[in-house]
Amino acid sequence: MSNASLLILPGDGIGPEVMAEVRKIIDWYGAKRDLTFDVSEDLVGGAAYDKHGTPLHDDTMAKAQEVDAVLLGAVGGPKYDSLDFSVKPERGLLRLRKEMDLFANLRPAQCFDALADFSSLKKDVVAGLDIMIVRELTSGIYFGEPRGIFEEGNERVGINTQRYTESEIDRVARSAFELARRRGNKVCSMEKANVMESGILWREVVQKVHDEDYPDVELSHMYADAGAMQLCRWPKQFDVIVTDNLFGDLLSDAAAMLTGSLGMLPSASLGSPMANGRPKALYEPVHGSAPDIAGQGKANPIACILSFAMALRYSFDQGDEAARLEAAIEKVLADGARTADLMGPEDGAPMSTSEMGDAIVAAL
Amino acid sequence: MSNASLLILPGDGIGPEVMAEVRKIIDWYGAKRDLTFDVSEDLVGGAAYDKHGTPLHDDTMAKAQEVDAVLLGAVGGPKYDSLDFSVKPERGLLRLRKEMDLFANLRPAQCFDALADFSSLKKDVVAGLDIMIVRELTSGIYFGEPRGIFEEGNERVGINTQRYTESEIDRVARSAFELARRRGNKVCSMEKANVMESGILWREVVQKVHDEDYPDVELSHMYADAGAMQLCRWPKQFDVIVTDNLFGDLLSDAAAMLTGSLGMLPSASLGSPMANGRPKALYEPVHGSAPDIAGQGKANPIACILSFAMALRYSFDQGDEAARLEAAIEKVLADGARTADLMGPEDGAPMSTSEMGDAIVAAL
Ligand SMILES: CC(C)[C@H](C(=O)O)[C@@H](O)C(=O)O
Ligand SMILES: CC(C)[C@H](C(=O)O)[C@@H](O)C(=O)O
Repeated sequence: MSNASLLILPGDGIGPEVMAEVRKIIDWYGAKRDLTFDVSEDLVGGAAYDKHGTPLHDDTMAKAQEVDAVLLGAVGGPKYDSLDFSVKPERGLLRLRKEMDLFANLRPAQCFDALADFSSLKKDVVAGLDIMIVRELTSGIYFGEPRGIFEEGNERVGINTQRYTESEIDRVARSAFELARRRGNKVCSMEKANVMESGILWREVVQKVHDEDYPDVELSHMYADAGAMQLCRWPKQFDVIVTDNLFGDLLSDAAAMLTGSLGMLPSASLGSPMANGRPKALYEPVHGSAPDIAGQGKANPIACILSFAMALRYSFDQGDEAARLEAAIEKVLADGARTADLMGPEDGAPMSTSEMGDAIVAAL
Repeated sequence: MSNASLLILPGDGIGPEVMAEVRKIIDWYGAKRDLTFDVSEDLVGGAAYDKHGTPLHDDTMAKAQEVDAVLLGAVGGPKYDSLDFSVKPERGLLRLRKEMDLFANLRPAQCFDALADFSSLKKDVVAGLDIMIVRELTSGIYFGEPRGIFEEGNERVGINTQRYTESEIDRVARSAFELARRRGNKVCSMEKANVMESGILWREVVQKVHDEDYPDVELSHMYADAGAMQLCRWPKQFDVIVTDNLFGDLLSDAAAMLTGSLGMLPSASLGSPMANGRPKALYEPVHGSAPDIAGQGKANPIACILSFAMALRYSFDQGDEAARLEAAIEKVLADGARTADLMGPEDGAPMSTSEMGDAIVAAL
């Protein structure tokens, strides 16, 4: 594959450890499948702050705009908790999302058969679960102005603004309907139209996009609080869920946890097509930087490796190779390979991060 | 008890049915315990709209301001879905909350022993669960200005404003700490301080109230997305959770569903003390108007009856009588009394709403 460029941003906490395992996978594809990537690596989050005093250097931002795909580990950690808001590790990630205009965040919540017992939910509630949450990622209360902490009378007031234009809703709705057509053909849109005007506009635009261009897809609407309930009660009722930035943050995390497979879940954040036809894209695991276990070789690299599989599929048109990688992972799990997060207290000694990476390479 | 006045607003859907059972309980207290209430009844939500063209008549609002406690059933239904935002059933409830200044919404998420099997979560995850979510109820994105749908260039934009002052955060934090002292002495505060300035102010003020006046209570902070995850993973780690209006809406609904006891959960919304020392107060079940089963005698009246028990405790200083009522409910459940929502498909014939009410009266 020519001109396939990949920018790797390991970030903080367990980011570098899990990314090292992705490197093994990338090397395998180069050596065995003649699938080579022009890989560069850089800093983001606290790691970038430590070196440059900013969670994302302008040069890194520029590089991210040029490559075909960015692969990110995780950002944040207690070391940076007292930093000013404007230079917190998270701002680096949010700047990437915003300036690359990655409006569609795809978060599969999938329950891996081998791990169904590991959920806090009953096995029949989660076994075989496979839903896709499409979260709007570049607008809403994450980016709306005015925002800040202001003086008002003799006290302070904290303000953030939820803000959605019709076109912002339109494009993410289209992403959801397109995905649904390749899956179970069902979309559930979630907002609080009973309380928020931005939710009314959201519901109206999603319905319009549906009626005009995707009448074949089954569409329903649900208030986000009822959505949170229904995810906990019977998640298999859903196929694709489309929702805004903030609701998507909570709902996708809850859904991820329900699967029992949190250390297993990847995500893709996609923007508009570039000149070469590939979408702007950033891939990252759903889990965070997990500072409590960082540097101990305990982290599960699978979510990050599956994020690379998503890159193969969505950025590089290598769906077969993505499926190969996913099958390898299912195989090692079926064979009993487990990092610490996938084990109960009585299950014996867990695999290390790098042993898991090696096992997956071997299974490939 | 002299001058104990109660305004009953059954509302829509199953509201009137479940409220009829509360009336039986109130009558029992009058007849057998000499605990009499000056009860009046009025309309709210769709029912009020049908009669007056508004989801809350000004006279009803005025009455609510004067009584010692309001008991509300539920509002909303598909019949009203196409109404203009300003007259939707929900606006009636929101007006009550706002004008009575009911800033502290107490939502216990409790798993009833007899029902632990009914949760979608594993029994050991939920058995014995007893957490209290304190949700700010009169500010935040529910009420912030500017709000609305506006023209901008050649498209529309939907806007809502999240807005919290220091004093609004301060007072709800105090409610949470006071409650914690009477329970497990632990408070977890949830926001998105990593993304929202209003969350930064929230975290800062909660910490300050703690350090100055409640240093004996154990305080932690969690991002709301992580909070959603942790509620799904191991809810028993929490005692009291304090959070804002919108996060509280989602998180308390998720928590309620996790218990498996949704039809069982009451809530109290409390404001500042009135001249007689009683707080302004509104009590309502956590469940909604359930239009799909309305009018069929299938609804579970327990959440509404437990809301009356909360009124006995928080408005009328009758903690012993509240405990008596709660014990009666535990007894009928232990004896196997079940409405349809508490049964599996193979569990035989369920009790009707009014049979459940009668059973509770008998157990008293
Ligand atoms: C790290 C944080 C800024 C981020 C978010 O809130 O979007 C994270 O929670 C996520 O979901 O990717
Ligand atoms: C009915 C609706 C306005 C309300 C809310 O969003 O607050 C409900 O969901 C609740 O939680 O009491």
